[in-house]
Amino acid sequence: MASYSLQDILAADHGFRRNLINSATGFKSVTLIGTENKAGKSNLAVFSQVIHLGADPPLIGVLFRPHVVKRETLENILETGRFTINHISQEVYREAHHTSARWTTSEFESCGFEKEIIEGFHAPFVKDSPVQIGLTLQEKTDIAVNGTHLVIGKIELLKVEEHAISKDGFIDLELLKVVTCSGLDSYHTTRRLSRLSYAKPDQVPKDIS
Amino acid sequence: MASYSLQDILAADHGFRRNLINSATGFKSVTLIGTENKAGKSNLAVFSQVIHLGADPPLIGVLFRPHVVKRETLENILETGRFTINHISQEVYREAHHTSARWTTSEFESCGFEKEIIEGFHAPFVKDSPVQIGLTLQEKTDIAVNGTHLVIGKIELLKVEEHAISKDGFIDLELLKVVTCSGLDSYHTTRRLSRLSYAKPDQVPKDIS
Repeated sequence: MASYSLQDILAADHGFRRNLINSATGFKSVTLIGTENKAGKSNLAVFSQVIHLGADPPLIGVLFRPHVVKRETLENILETGRFTINHISQEVYREAHHTSARWTTSEFESCGFEKEIIEGFHAPFVKDSPVQIGLTLQEKTDIAVNGTHLVIGKIELLKVEEHAISKDGFIDLELLKVVTCSGLDSYHTTRRLSRLSYAKPDQVPKDIS
Repeated sequence: MASYSLQDILAADHGFRRNLINSATGFKSVTLIGTENKAGKSNLAVFSQVIHLGADPPLIGVLFRPHVVKRETLENILETGRFTINHISQEVYREAHHTSARWTTSEFESCGFEKEIIEGFHAPFVKDSPVQIGLTLQEKTDIAVNGTHLVIGKIELLKVEEHAISKDGFIDLELLKVVTCSGLDSYHTTRRLSRLSYAKPDQVPKDIS
């Protein structure tokens, strides 16, 4: 095994450290966040630091780097209180990655994504995204140790391609060809091993369908 | 598309809502967290709410549900300031899921995982895990809106199977057969589409590696 102490990590080349530590947490959700400022300029950006925070009420957290430079997505959320999270299918992962470039124009047009506007909701969705989530800002928690910000949104609207919803509420993301990412730039599709039954001490978890 | 409003989600059956909202954030990291209390009782538990918080210093966040009942992993971290995160390869995903049962004995022995003790580090690692991370507690941030807790650890030690580390620091988790999960109980292996070049406005991202 290769072994890195904290000192080794801090002494490493900047790019090596970013790749290493960004890979270390495992596979990640990767989605497109859609926002629009009050002047009507839209923004679309790929994010991999998104976390489930709770189901009742339904809450999702998005981590932002320190707000010491212009961060359009964060600023639009703080300005309007609205954002959308849109999943990425394998057909458009390259275009989704392209939204991370420094665009001066809207990434919707620049990267080839069509906007979907839902009446009364001040943030654009990505048309044809297989899972679309509309959220309102609930809380912004600042992380003291490194100046990052956890933006917490409450789900106001969840749209999912109907054939991917199981009777028990599970969304079959794999069926929808939703991608996952690792590190800063690696995109993957998935292959299911199985769903497993609720774990009990007296029996090994069984496959459920 | 099936469409759920906040009201629909709140009115849904408890199990349906849990599955739906836990699936909605996309594919997740799924790892085993190892801890030990001061009396020497070890604990091993599967977690999917883990997030990369920063590379310099190297920080990882783990979300815990409200501390209103006994939560051994959280209590051990608060008591000793140490925990480990260990990735799960496809060979042991069933045993990893089994750690979520209500064990009174240590999950290491009960679920068939061997402990690896590293001198001077008060938390056990999972032997044979392809990526092992030792962390010290840095900060506990309480999320006001739903009473959950974000525990932030600083990486003190990172061990990775050597052949999976690229020259640029990227860890090839797929080569290590590390699994990802979706929802509460679905486990998946991955298939790489590609790594993509740093995005610039004037060119479509290219495959790298």
